[in-house]
Amino acid sequence: MKNSNSKTSALSEKEGVAAPEILKTKSAAAIQGLRKKQPSAEELISGILAGNITSLSRAITLIESTNINHLAKANTIINACLPYSKKSIRIGITGVPGVGKSTFIEAFGTYLTGLGKKVAVLAVDPSSTISHGSILGDKTRMEELVKDKNAYIRPSASGETLGGVARKTRESITLCEAAGFDTVIIETVGVGQSETAVHSMVDFFLLLKISGAGDELQGIKRGIMEMADAIVINKADGENIAKARAAKVEFNRALHLFPAKNSGWNPKVMTSSSITKEGIEEVWKTITEYLKLTSDNNYFEVKRQEQNQYWMMETIEEQLKNDFYNNPTIQKLLIENKKAVQNNELSPFAAATVLLEHYFKK
Amino acid sequence: MKNSNSKTSALSEKEGVAAPEILKTKSAAAIQGLRKKQPSAEELISGILAGNITSLSRAITLIESTNINHLAKANTIINACLPYSKKSIRIGITGVPGVGKSTFIEAFGTYLTGLGKKVAVLAVDPSSTISHGSILGDKTRMEELVKDKNAYIRPSASGETLGGVARKTRESITLCEAAGFDTVIIETVGVGQSETAVHSMVDFFLLLKISGAGDELQGIKRGIMEMADAIVINKADGENIAKARAAKVEFNRALHLFPAKNSGWNPKVMTSSSITKEGIEEVWKTITEYLKLTSDNNYFEVKRQEQNQYWMMETIEEQLKNDFYNNPTIQKLLIENKKAVQNNELSPFAAATVLLEHYFKK
Repeated sequence: MKNSNSKTSALSEKEGVAAPEILKTKSAAAIQGLRKKQPSAEELISGILAGNITSLSRAITLIESTNINHLAKANTIINACLPYSKKSIRIGITGVPGVGKSTFIEAFGTYLTGLGKKVAVLAVDPSSTISHGSILGDKTRMEELVKDKNAYIRPSASGETLGGVARKTRESITLCEAAGFDTVIIETVGVGQSETAVHSMVDFFLLLKISGAGDELQGIKRGIMEMADAIVINKADGENIAKARAAKVEFNRALHLFPAKNSGWNPKVMTSSSITKEGIEEVWKTITEYLKLTSDNNYFEVKRQEQNQYWMMETIEEQLKNDFYNNPTIQKLLIENKKAVQNNELSPFAAATVLLEHYFKK
Repeated sequence: MKNSNSKTSALSEKEGVAAPEILKTKSAAAIQGLRKKQPSAEELISGILAGNITSLSRAITLIESTNINHLAKANTIINACLPYSKKSIRIGITGVPGVGKSTFIEAFGTYLTGLGKKVAVLAVDPSSTISHGSILGDKTRMEELVKDKNAYIRPSASGETLGGVARKTRESITLCEAAGFDTVIIETVGVGQSETAVHSMVDFFLLLKISGAGDELQGIKRGIMEMADAIVINKADGENIAKARAAKVEFNRALHLFPAKNSGWNPKVMTSSSITKEGIEEVWKTITEYLKLTSDNNYFEVKRQEQNQYWMMETIEEQLKNDFYNNPTIQKLLIENKKAVQNNELSPFAAATVLLEHYFKK
């Protein structure tokens, strides 16, 4: 199981509620037998801390499980791994479909392992239930990295809300770091709200763009450009080179119109090619410059603390809302009151008051 | 009381918990006597619908009151006014302090009343407790508009959270519209989160900027530029003209890099001067173009409906959070758990779970 750091072997570890097909044909007794072989939390923790990829994959599977019985075990593992999660750099990579995220990560990840780094690639893709794992799913695009023993690629947890997927990815980062991965790349699908979630769990946020064909005008969600610590104009090869350079000038100009970042960092614009590998080194150089700056001014640590607080509050507030909106009386009243608001019979505030009174009376 | 549409007379209507100084020196019986003279909800409603400014001011004072006994009366009035609130245009105006918001509104508002429009100017300024009414407070800057009988200027409700101030401003819009004001301008102080709140209650969002002196690089909050339906480079007079025109070119270029708006509207960049009045007419022309476009494609109505839903949900979620965070046990646990998260002893999710279990057990 030494080389189990590919997408396929990670998937074969899946367990819990969604039992692998092969299990479904076995008897309950056989399943019970298999289940008994599951390593304990302690075994998984020591495996992870020793850098064992199988232990890491199994623990992430526990985190991803929707089986309530796995939750306590998962939490024990996460809390044990937490003290070891500080020595990494977390890089978020976003961009619309077609921008070349997978090939960029392949080239960038391979460059990093060449420098002696250990690279984990995770993803936030709440849409993957529908698209059946649209990102990190196309292994052919990450052929080299998948075989690289210093890389670990794990597809996105699926079948959940963004909040659920984000939480699982975030906790998977902790485990990867405890397993010795010093560079964690989080890919986002580039649609929906996943960029914001990823931005809130990484140290450095990179936006991939391509030049030409009106790409500047559409595709990426509003507000994403302002989040970026770097914009990389990808596919800057062959006939695209001139256009990519023009786009670089344009984005550089635009970035100057944005307000200054709390980090003190001025976002950079670069071009890159996953084919010629041009620009890949420069991206890493930029990230190390960022690391130097934010370590010196302490922003790196401050941001991580803020992110922790953010996720704690976010989890709380999501659950408070869930409890409210899943209440059957509320659901009924909500429909009625929404209609009254729509028909200008009731102000939004008055409608909210009606619902809140019912909820807190329960 | 016919001319009571100035800031001063609006303020003199304040009542409720924060009793005017003069009342504090009177006996309880005298206060009771004064209170008895308060018009009923029905009287205020018919006054508002007849365009009576005194009734409007008194009703807004009820909305702004923190006295719980005024709430039901305020809600009755709001709900009665709702059906009359559809025929207006709501314009949000933001910009950092010093950009000339007051003088711009003075010039723009006066231009509009000259066209026969009835203009109400409201403000969202949750900081006004500290700054003692920093916006709309300096009457000398709106000398003309204050005296204009087709204008109604009301300073921001004070002493509250942003949520509270925003709710009150939003409901005041309804009353102004029911009183016949067809153009409602909402000013924001340009700091904090008030821009987002104002953006969520207006049809058209206008960002005021000034050119030169590094203004492009700082001051305005992140994300605001993307919200703008128009950017107006203000103070484009005298020596500033050339710089303002250069800034216009620059912003125009930058806006093209943003994703398309749901409204189908391409944000415009203009220059203006509150001294020479240049550009003021063009701003209004732009807004009428926007109105035409969004009426034709139905976005205008869709957006208002979405805003109503947004404010209903926002109110609900704010109250859910208040109930949670004001719980004394939670407050105690929150401090402990935040510390544990900070020290990497507990994951943010595990910490949230502890708090939620306590809350829902109560």
